[in-house]
Amino acid sequence: MHVLIIGAGGMLGGKLARAVAAQGALGGRAVTRMTLADLAAPPLPADGPPARALALDIAAPGAPERLIEGRPDIIFHLAAVLSGESEADFGKGYRVNLDATRALLEAIRRMPDYRPRLVYASTLAVYGAPFPDPVPDDFHLAPSSSYGTAKAMAELLVNDHSRRGFLDGVSLRLPTICIRPGRPNRAASSFFSSILREPLAGQPAELPVGEDFRHYYASPRAATGFFLHAAGLDLSLLGTDRGLVMPGVSATVGEQIEALRRFAGQRAVDLIRRVRDPAVEAIVTTWAGRYAATRARALGFRAEAGFDEILRVYAEDDMPA
Amino acid sequence: MHVLIIGAGGMLGGKLARAVAAQGALGGRAVTRMTLADLAAPPLPADGPPARALALDIAAPGAPERLIEGRPDIIFHLAAVLSGESEADFGKGYRVNLDATRALLEAIRRMPDYRPRLVYASTLAVYGAPFPDPVPDDFHLAPSSSYGTAKAMAELLVNDHSRRGFLDGVSLRLPTICIRPGRPNRAASSFFSSILREPLAGQPAELPVGEDFRHYYASPRAATGFFLHAAGLDLSLLGTDRGLVMPGVSATVGEQIEALRRFAGQRAVDLIRRVRDPAVEAIVTTWAGRYAATRARALGFRAEAGFDEILRVYAEDDMPA
Repeated sequence: MHVLIIGAGGMLGGKLARAVAAQGALGGRAVTRMTLADLAAPPLPADGPPARALALDIAAPGAPERLIEGRPDIIFHLAAVLSGESEADFGKGYRVNLDATRALLEAIRRMPDYRPRLVYASTLAVYGAPFPDPVPDDFHLAPSSSYGTAKAMAELLVNDHSRRGFLDGVSLRLPTICIRPGRPNRAASSFFSSILREPLAGQPAELPVGEDFRHYYASPRAATGFFLHAAGLDLSLLGTDRGLVMPGVSATVGEQIEALRRFAGQRAVDLIRRVRDPAVEAIVTTWAGRYAATRARALGFRAEAGFDEILRVYAEDDMPA
Repeated sequence: MHVLIIGAGGMLGGKLARAVAAQGALGGRAVTRMTLADLAAPPLPADGPPARALALDIAAPGAPERLIEGRPDIIFHLAAVLSGESEADFGKGYRVNLDATRALLEAIRRMPDYRPRLVYASTLAVYGAPFPDPVPDDFHLAPSSSYGTAKAMAELLVNDHSRRGFLDGVSLRLPTICIRPGRPNRAASSFFSSILREPLAGQPAELPVGEDFRHYYASPRAATGFFLHAAGLDLSLLGTDRGLVMPGVSATVGEQIEALRRFAGQRAVDLIRRVRDPAVEAIVTTWAGRYAATRARALGFRAEAGFDEILRVYAEDDMPA
């Protein structure tokens, strides 16, 4: 079985590539070949099935045809322009997040006798405030960003192409990934990870919101697991709506901090500085804190049980020694 | 004020054009000029403001620019490839229902100092079974047709372009229009009108479903009124979700028939022949029978109170003498 990962140079795409290579199988079938694509050639896993790197811009003409010329059986599509850039560059956001995905679907549709599994990385940004608590699976798509809009549109296309039998697709709406390895960045969501990651490294971190702020999380390992699990599922159970909210840990910032205290002690917690930032608050308080994820849980998708587990996963997978 | 109606050659578009011409004003502002566009040049209203007909294919290159070159203040967009044809011709459906609408939005975005009101004709086909009863306004978009998918995607674009300030748009999800003037056709929904319209003309009609089948209706006059009302509303109240389920009459086929009996007597009812058609039943039973339409009602959109009124409206507006 040939596996294609689009966006394999990213944090999640890279973890997924290494996990597929390590498992050597997906959904009970052996992986015999891997193609890892991104803007720059992604690193190839040290072991596992034969793999090749493909450097291309998925929004360029002809890119979809190059991606699928080896007729991959499973396509993981994680390539995207993220929310800040989609908002700043309206044209680019739609070109990559909508048009390139649509061109990929069209290329698949035009290839004779070809109906691959497509696992599409989507986002909870397809939803918008005001929210019920928890947000049910049948809540309306009302994105409040160009990023969420393009992702919601691409999801609808994945649904329709699946219904028509052109491919067998599913869209995974991912929780906020936490603890994200690396450094703080300027995204409004950066503090969710940095208030844990930096103190664990003995570094200070700023908390821009109140401790009662609730959000929805999964670890990089859980997110990788969502993609692996989706590759082998019987998707016909989903009906026409193949957009799935992934399970996650709903927790307040205060609960995050208590888990940090249990894991690393008061000295780590003391490194968190409370610096309220109304600009960050204005953005993140438009995000929901809890999703039911009923369908995904029933299909066997699993996230962590709480932040104690998320911290343990970080220590095992990503924490610098 | 300049008013553009795209799809003015259709049944609803034509009624809307005549209503705008007759009123001579929209939302309290005088209409000084009208442009009526369709594939073939639409008939011009006999009276009212100066009007010109524009014959073009909205999916052709350059069509959006031609449509807006007169900088219309209000754009009613009713042009579409309907559900049967969108399902039969996958490419054409998306080209007209999605791409042409997107090209129109892009042309508006690119025109300097221009932010028109756009009233977009959408459909309840953006929803899909299984349904709660009634379907709430915040129910998920899960179309089960390529038509509904393209309309849902276009709605999402209208929302995002509105949020970004490129235009001031609203999408009206119309109930099944009943009683539709004219003749029965091969659409699965044809019988909703024909079981009333044909007996009123002394002609037999076939009823392919059971009398307990419930559906959701508005008259052509009510639908015209939705567009007129939407033209003058303060849409900023809607937030990011500018897709509105229009109010309608929820009625069973049995209730339709009882209204026919009250309106035209047993002799008319006797012209309805019960001929169950499993193919038609399979399609229409995937449609919902009742929508809450809470937001639209609160904004002052009004449909008929029941089928007695729908029959009276038909007699006044469309019934052949």
